[in-house]
Amino acid sequence: MKLTRWGAIGAERPAVIIDGRRKDCGAQFADWTPAFFRDGGVQSLRELLASTLALPDVPERARWASCVPRPGKLVCIGLNYTDHAAEVGAKVPREPIIFLKGTNTVVGPHDDVLIPRRSMKTDHEVELGVVIGADARYLASVHDAASHIAGYCIVHDVSEREFQVERGGQWTKGKSCDTFAPTGPWMATPDEIGDVRALTLELDVNGVRRQTGSTASMVFDPAFLVHYLSQFMTLEAGDVIATGTPPGVGMAMTPPQFLAAGDVVELRITHLGHQRQIFRPA
Amino acid sequence: MKLTRWGAIGAERPAVIIDGRRKDCGAQFADWTPAFFRDGGVQSLRELLASTLALPDVPERARWASCVPRPGKLVCIGLNYTDHAAEVGAKVPREPIIFLKGTNTVVGPHDDVLIPRRSMKTDHEVELGVVIGADARYLASVHDAASHIAGYCIVHDVSEREFQVERGGQWTKGKSCDTFAPTGPWMATPDEIGDVRALTLELDVNGVRRQTGSTASMVFDPAFLVHYLSQFMTLEAGDVIATGTPPGVGMAMTPPQFLAAGDVVELRITHLGHQRQIFRPA
Repeated sequence: MKLTRWGAIGAERPAVIIDGRRKDCGAQFADWTPAFFRDGGVQSLRELLASTLALPDVPERARWASCVPRPGKLVCIGLNYTDHAAEVGAKVPREPIIFLKGTNTVVGPHDDVLIPRRSMKTDHEVELGVVIGADARYLASVHDAASHIAGYCIVHDVSEREFQVERGGQWTKGKSCDTFAPTGPWMATPDEIGDVRALTLELDVNGVRRQTGSTASMVFDPAFLVHYLSQFMTLEAGDVIATGTPPGVGMAMTPPQFLAAGDVVELRITHLGHQRQIFRPA
Repeated sequence: MKLTRWGAIGAERPAVIIDGRRKDCGAQFADWTPAFFRDGGVQSLRELLASTLALPDVPERARWASCVPRPGKLVCIGLNYTDHAAEVGAKVPREPIIFLKGTNTVVGPHDDVLIPRRSMKTDHEVELGVVIGADARYLASVHDAASHIAGYCIVHDVSEREFQVERGGQWTKGKSCDTFAPTGPWMATPDEIGDVRALTLELDVNGVRRQTGSTASMVFDPAFLVHYLSQFMTLEAGDVIATGTPPGVGMAMTPPQFLAAGDVVELRITHLGHQRQIFRPA
C-alpha cells in the first residue's frame, strides 16, 4: 500500500494511491497518526482496500502534503553511505552517527523550500525515510526491528552547511530551519519495496543530476538502525528516521555549489515516487 | 501565575498554584497547549484568577505532571555558564551551542528517572527552562524576544556521558533516553521571577550538594537565546529551551561520579520550586 496525505496546510486528509491515483480515506481514518499505527490501522486499511468500497478521488491539483503528519521525532543518520563518507573525507563510522531535526521542518514533497536569511550554503540531501509502525524500546534483535517498520518514503534532509559546521557546536542550527524536511509523496509499506538494499536514489538541480546512489552502499540498513536506536531511546509509532544521503552533495563538489533562490530540486527513489521543490528566500 | 499539570500519565489536567495549593483548571482549559499560548490563553487565565470563581483543589497526593505538555521542540544550550565551561575545560562559546532532545523524554518533576541499560555514566544537569509563548521567527531584536517568553521552569537535562561523547558523532544518544527531561513542578510567568539573571540553581544527590550556580553566570540569557534561535528555526508556542547547566556535574568531579540505581536527586531554582527523582534501572 501507498499512504499519502493531501490538502491545505492544517487541513490535511489521509489518502492512498491506487493505480497511480490518489483516493481519499478521510471518511474512514482521521489521519495517519501514531494511534493509527499503534492500533492496527495498517491492517484495517488493508481490509478496507480489499473490500468493494469505492473511495473518492482526490482533486487532481490538490496539494501533496507530507505522507505522514509531523512525527514525534525526526531522527537522522550521518555519513551512512560509504561513498558519501569518502566524498567528504570522513571515515566510515563504526556505529551510527545520529542527530535530531526539529519536527516542524516537515513539509509536503512539492512545497517550496525556504533558503534561510543570511544563508550562503544551503545544500541538498536525498534520503530514504523509515516510518516507525510500533513503539520500539530495547528491541532484542535486528530481526525484531524489521517488524517495527511501517514503511518507507523519500525525505529531503535540506541542510545549511555554514550553520551546521561553522557556527559552533552541534549540527542542529543547519538542520532545523523551516521547511528543511520535505517528506513524501507517499509512504510505501515494506511489501511494495522488495529488497530495501536495492533502491536507487537520485537528485537533480535544475535538471542536472547531482546525487546518484544505491541503498546497497548503506553502512547501516534500516532494520539495523531501528534496533540500534531502540537501545538509546524509545522510537514511537509515527517517528521518522532519515537514513543518510549518498554522494553528490553540493559541499563536496569542486568548487562547492550551493542552492540559490529559483533553483528547482527534484528527488527520486525507486518505488517511492519523486519530489520537486522550488527554493525561495525565507 | 504558576501553571502546572497533574494526574496520571496520559490523563493530565491543567492547574495553577495559589497560596501553595494546586487548583484544577480542567473545567476551563483543555491543557496548556500551543493553542492555549497562541490564542491569548495566559490573559484568559489571568482574568479567571481575578474573578470570584473558586477552583477545586487538586487531590493532595495526585501526581505532579510536567508543567507543560510534551513540547514541539526541546532545544538545549550547551556550555552556557562560564563556571561550567571552566570545570569541563571548554572555552566559553562565542555563540550558543544548540542541540535537540527528543521530546518524549519529558516527564513529571518527581517521576522516576530510568538509568539506560548498559549505562555507566548517567549524570545530572539542573537547568533553567524557558517556555515559548508565541511563535518566534526572525525576531528583530533581543528586546522583541522577551515578549515571546511565556515563563520559566526547572528542566533536569539528564545526560549519559558515554553515549553522549564516546559513541561517535553528535550528542543525541546521551540526551534523548526515556525520562531524561523532568520538567516542572510549575511554569512561573515572568512577573513572578523578577530578575532572571539573579536566580540560584541547586542540585543535591542523596542529600549532598553537587551543583550550585546562579543565572548571573549565564553566557547567553533567555531573551538573547530566543532571539538567536529564531534566526535559525521557528520557535513555536509551547516549545521549551533548556538553557544550560551551572558547575558541579558528575563528569567534572575528581574522580567522576555518576548516578546509580536508588540515588535520589533533588533540584531547586529560586521561584521555580523543586524536583525530586529516584533513579531506577530501565
